[in-house]
Amino acid sequence: MSEFDLIRRLQETVGPGPGGSSTCVLGIGDDAAVLECDAGRQLVVCTDTLVEGVHFPEDTVAQAVGHKALAVNLSDLAAMGADPAWFLMALTLPAADQGWLDAFARGTAELATSAGIELIGGDVTSGPRSVCVTALGHVEPGTALTRGGAASGDLIAVSGHIGAAAAAVQALRDGRQPTPDDRRALDYPSPRLALGRVLRGVASACIDLSDGLLADLGHILEQSGGGARIELARLPTPPSLAGLADSERWMLQLAGGDDYELCFTLPAERSTQLEAIARSCGVAVTVIGTVTATPGIVLVDERGEHFKPAHAGYEHFGWTGSG
Amino acid sequence: MSEFDLIRRLQETVGPGPGGSSTCVLGIGDDAAVLECDAGRQLVVCTDTLVEGVHFPEDTVAQAVGHKALAVNLSDLAAMGADPAWFLMALTLPAADQGWLDAFARGTAELATSAGIELIGGDVTSGPRSVCVTALGHVEPGTALTRGGAASGDLIAVSGHIGAAAAAVQALRDGRQPTPDDRRALDYPSPRLALGRVLRGVASACIDLSDGLLADLGHILEQSGGGARIELARLPTPPSLAGLADSERWMLQLAGGDDYELCFTLPAERSTQLEAIARSCGVAVTVIGTVTATPGIVLVDERGEHFKPAHAGYEHFGWTGSG
Repeated sequence: MSEFDLIRRLQETVGPGPGGSSTCVLGIGDDAAVLECDAGRQLVVCTDTLVEGVHFPEDTVAQAVGHKALAVNLSDLAAMGADPAWFLMALTLPAADQGWLDAFARGTAELATSAGIELIGGDVTSGPRSVCVTALGHVEPGTALTRGGAASGDLIAVSGHIGAAAAAVQALRDGRQPTPDDRRALDYPSPRLALGRVLRGVASACIDLSDGLLADLGHILEQSGGGARIELARLPTPPSLAGLADSERWMLQLAGGDDYELCFTLPAERSTQLEAIARSCGVAVTVIGTVTATPGIVLVDERGEHFKPAHAGYEHFGWTGSG
Repeated sequence: MSEFDLIRRLQETVGPGPGGSSTCVLGIGDDAAVLECDAGRQLVVCTDTLVEGVHFPEDTVAQAVGHKALAVNLSDLAAMGADPAWFLMALTLPAADQGWLDAFARGTAELATSAGIELIGGDVTSGPRSVCVTALGHVEPGTALTRGGAASGDLIAVSGHIGAAAAAVQALRDGRQPTPDDRRALDYPSPRLALGRVLRGVASACIDLSDGLLADLGHILEQSGGGARIELARLPTPPSLAGLADSERWMLQLAGGDDYELCFTLPAERSTQLEAIARSCGVAVTVIGTVTATPGIVLVDERGEHFKPAHAGYEHFGWTGSG
C-alpha cells in the first residue's frame, strides 16, 4: 500500500469537509492544497506532534491516537477562540498496518466530523510511530484570544475538571492499571471549541492545559505580567481523584498535564456571565483564583496556608512538553 | 532547556519574516499563530515529514537536516507555483542538544531567508529524530499549477539535472562514500521557487521530483490521463553520473528520488519560451519527452529501443515515499 493509498484511505474515512464558508479548492492528491480563506477574517494556524511513548503510551489503541492527534490541535484553536476549518496530517508508522490505520482514521474522523474540520492534506511515511497535525481556523480580525491580556484583579477560571489524565499517567508509571475514566481522559481529550468561541470578547487571556496548570498559567503570566493566587479547594476534581490525599491530588492537578481544558482569565465584573456561558457550552466552568500584581503563583489551601509543590513542570513521558 | 526556549532559539536564528504583503499578526509564543492572508489570493498549504534513517541518513549534519526539512516543503510550494509566506516546524529530538539545534536552525534560517518565508510557529518534543514542516504560500486565484492539466502532445520537461541524490543513496547502501557533489545534492536540495512562479500560465501540469521521475510523472499522468514517451538520452545528467553504464545511470535517474527538481508539461507551441524561462530563473530546463494518448510510460534509448526498468518506485530508506 502506497503513501497515496494510505492518505486516500484516511481521507475516505474522515470524509468530506463540512462545507460552509471555508472552501477547499484543491485537496488531497496534489503537491499542496489550495484554499479560499474566509474574506475579512484572520487565519489561525497551529501544529503539534504526538510521539508514541512520549505523548501517548505504547498500549494506546489506534482509535485513541487518531482522536488525540487531532484533539490537541483543536484544543489550540479553541484556546485562540478560532472556528476550525482545515487540517493536515503527517503520519509516521513503523509498518503499513491496514487494521491499525483504519482504526486510527476512525478516531480522527469522528472528531473531525463533530468539530466541522476538513482533512486537506497529509503525508504518510515510514519510521517510529508519530503524528504531526497542522490545524487551520478563522477568527474575526482582532478577536483571537491570546496569552497576553490578563490584568491584576482578573479572575482565573478553568473548564471541566483537571487531573484525571495525569492520574492515568501516574498509574501507568507505577505499573498499575488506570481507572477507565482516567484512561479515557488521557486517550480522548475533548477540545473545548464551543467554549473558546463564546470566550471571544469575554476572556482577557486564554490557554489550553497541555503541560499542567502551573506551567500553562505560567505562560499567561509571562505574557501578561503579574502573578496569581490559586485556591486549591476550588480546583475542579474528577470523581476518580476524590479519594486521594490533598497533596497527592493537588500535584496531579497542578503539575500533571494532558487535561486539554481551557484556562482563562476575565475581568471580575464579567463573572456573572460564566454560568450562562457554561450552560450554553455544556461544560463546567470554575473560578479557581485571581490574577495578582506580584509575580509568582501562590497556592493556598482552605485554611489559607501556602502549598509548595514538589515540582512545577509536566514532562508527559519524555523530557519536554508539547505546546 | 524548555520547548519554549528551543522554539525561541529557532526563531532567533531564523530571524524575522521578509515583511511584504503577508502579515503575521501573532507569531510564536501563543497557542497558535494569527495571520492576515493576502486579500484576493488563494492560500496554498503542504506538509512533509523527514524521519532520520528514512529521509536522511543518520550521519547527515544538523545544518543539512534543517535545510532539507524546509526545502522539501518549499519544493511542494514551487510545484504549485506559489509564493512562500509562512512555515511551522515541529521538531522531534532524542535529546535537547544545543549544538545540534543551533546548526539545524542555521540550515533552516539560510534557506528561509533566501526564500522569503517566515517561521510562525512550532513544537519541539522528545522522541526519535524527525522534522515535520508545514508551509503556507499564496497564488492568484485559479493560477496554481496542478498535476491534472497535461494533454496529449504536451512536452515534458525537468529542471536542473536528476540522479545525483539517488547516486548518493546508492553509494551509502553499498557502503561507499558518495562523491561530494552527490552528497550535496542529497543533503541540500534547491527548491525551484523562481521556476514555479514563472511556470504559472505556461505549464499545463507540474510536480516536484521527490519519489523519482517515473513515480512522480506517473502522478501527473494519473491525474491528467494519458501516458508518456521519454527519450532517455535527453535526461539531464549530473557530471558525477556521466561515467556510469547507461542502464545503471537510467535507473538512478528514473527510479531514484530526492531530486526536488520540477517536472512539468506544456503545450508544444510554448516550447519557444523555455530558453528565456531557464535564463530568467538561472536553472537549466530540458525537454525529455512527450505526453501521449496511450496510458503507460514508454522509455526509448537513442536507437529507439525500449528500456524496461527493473523497478519503478523509490523508497528513500524505508517502505514508502514522502509526498
